[in-house]
Amino acid sequence: MNSPDSELLSINTATVRAQWKLPEIVAGCARHGIRMISPWRDQVAGTGLKESAERIRDAGLVLSGYCRGGMFPAVDAKGRRAALDDNKRAVDEALTLGAPCLVLVVGGLPTAENGRVASKDLLSARQMVRDGIGELLEYARPAGMPLAIEPLHPMYAAERACVNTMAHANDLCDELGSGVGIAVDVYHVWWDPQLRQQIERAGAQQGRLLAFHLCDWLVPTTDLLLDRGMMGDGVIDIPLIRSWMDGAGYRGAHEVEIFSANNWWKRDPDDVLAVCVERHCSVC
Amino acid sequence: MNSPDSELLSINTATVRAQWKLPEIVAGCARHGIRMISPWRDQVAGTGLKESAERIRDAGLVLSGYCRGGMFPAVDAKGRRAALDDNKRAVDEALTLGAPCLVLVVGGLPTAENGRVASKDLLSARQMVRDGIGELLEYARPAGMPLAIEPLHPMYAAERACVNTMAHANDLCDELGSGVGIAVDVYHVWWDPQLRQQIERAGAQQGRLLAFHLCDWLVPTTDLLLDRGMMGDGVIDIPLIRSWMDGAGYRGAHEVEIFSANNWWKRDPDDVLAVCVERHCSVC
Repeated sequence: MNSPDSELLSINTATVRAQWKLPEIVAGCARHGIRMISPWRDQVAGTGLKESAERIRDAGLVLSGYCRGGMFPAVDAKGRRAALDDNKRAVDEALTLGAPCLVLVVGGLPTAENGRVASKDLLSARQMVRDGIGELLEYARPAGMPLAIEPLHPMYAAERACVNTMAHANDLCDELGSGVGIAVDVYHVWWDPQLRQQIERAGAQQGRLLAFHLCDWLVPTTDLLLDRGMMGDGVIDIPLIRSWMDGAGYRGAHEVEIFSANNWWKRDPDDVLAVCVERHCSVC
Repeated sequence: MNSPDSELLSINTATVRAQWKLPEIVAGCARHGIRMISPWRDQVAGTGLKESAERIRDAGLVLSGYCRGGMFPAVDAKGRRAALDDNKRAVDEALTLGAPCLVLVVGGLPTAENGRVASKDLLSARQMVRDGIGELLEYARPAGMPLAIEPLHPMYAAERACVNTMAHANDLCDELGSGVGIAVDVYHVWWDPQLRQQIERAGAQQGRLLAFHLCDWLVPTTDLLLDRGMMGDGVIDIPLIRSWMDGAGYRGAHEVEIFSANNWWKRDPDDVLAVCVERHCSVC
């Protein structure tokens, strides 16, 4: 049976990244009775991989995921090779940290060295994503590190991820075989009329539902990237989507991931964690 | 056969709404050799319906559409009745103006009197949209005014339109029968992995592809509503999508609709129209 809800709460370290470095986040989670964490690579690098792993373990925390690999499309083979090599390092780090999966933000349209979009060929970018995940799987699968495709909201199709629906992610998983699954983030998929059926489709495959991310869609939303809301402050019917995840057999973490430049990133991080705990209990 | 491209250009009046009232827009279009226009209700109301119709006709322009009806969901039956009545008036105006279709922005989650979202029940909102269009069809169909459902980008699901994919719009058209079709706006649908197949599906039904709207997706996009780009300044492969529309049998207008608070709405509107003409020719 399900654990009590409080056992399911995980904090994605982006939620308090503006205030705290990783060691402070680890200590903060422990202080608030939060048992799981999902760190970002840059924060782990800032603390050092070995020390990060030790601090997390010593605090009695486990990972709900590792953020993030991906960004496969590139203008040339050299760029795609560099992305693959970097993704292999991310797999190694995820293994060292004991992560249950490496989350993939797959990348959007390829960019030139100046950072500008170099091609409008979305179909080709999607093929590079498929091929990149396929190559990475040859490394991750034997190592036992599941890859979690995170479909991102369509407003990120150009710059961050050209996989924008659960259906597309399920299609990729069907094509690529074992070792790859999906990270479901309510912020990215709540609008999708196929959401319930695609969660059920994913749940029918052993090990495909790898992560469940929580925040909320604010009305109005004032920034495309950094104006996510705390659960309960927006318009997403989180209990409904959670019920679909539960019904599809998902028993993993509820990971709170909030990018919020003008609100939550400006608050006392201990207050942020306290609100995460309270809202996870009362809203989700 | 197709007309020369320049004959297909239409200006949605939102594109220069910050600078000009409707009579100036009509005169400007005529001056730039633009033969089609798609006015918004508030601009028509500002000039008066009869005078608007006369000025458009006297300038030798025809409409490519009329913006807009919709906004069907409401918290109670009284609100839904008011929306239906307002939509009937929009049909009447569209008939007076000789519009080939009334564009529907169908509405999002219902709001309370204070303007705040009153319900997170997206499925119910979608049912209200279906029912609202169905009721409006009983008025519009015998009057001979086609209704054009415009799927809006998923980032508008809460506030403006809870129909966010071509597939959903096609499903609604299949269910509701004759007299209703789709307005395809590249800004809203360019990211959709099903876009080509859903345009083909729509094209297979006589009279379903009712409008084709153009602008571009900027990288970065700095505002969810008012930062649309001129064709060619963003990342949408407009010629590709146009080829799909052409292939599906669409022979109607190419309507330029740009909301741009910090760029195009601040420029000399004659320059804006000149750029629209040039880009439509060189990019689309």
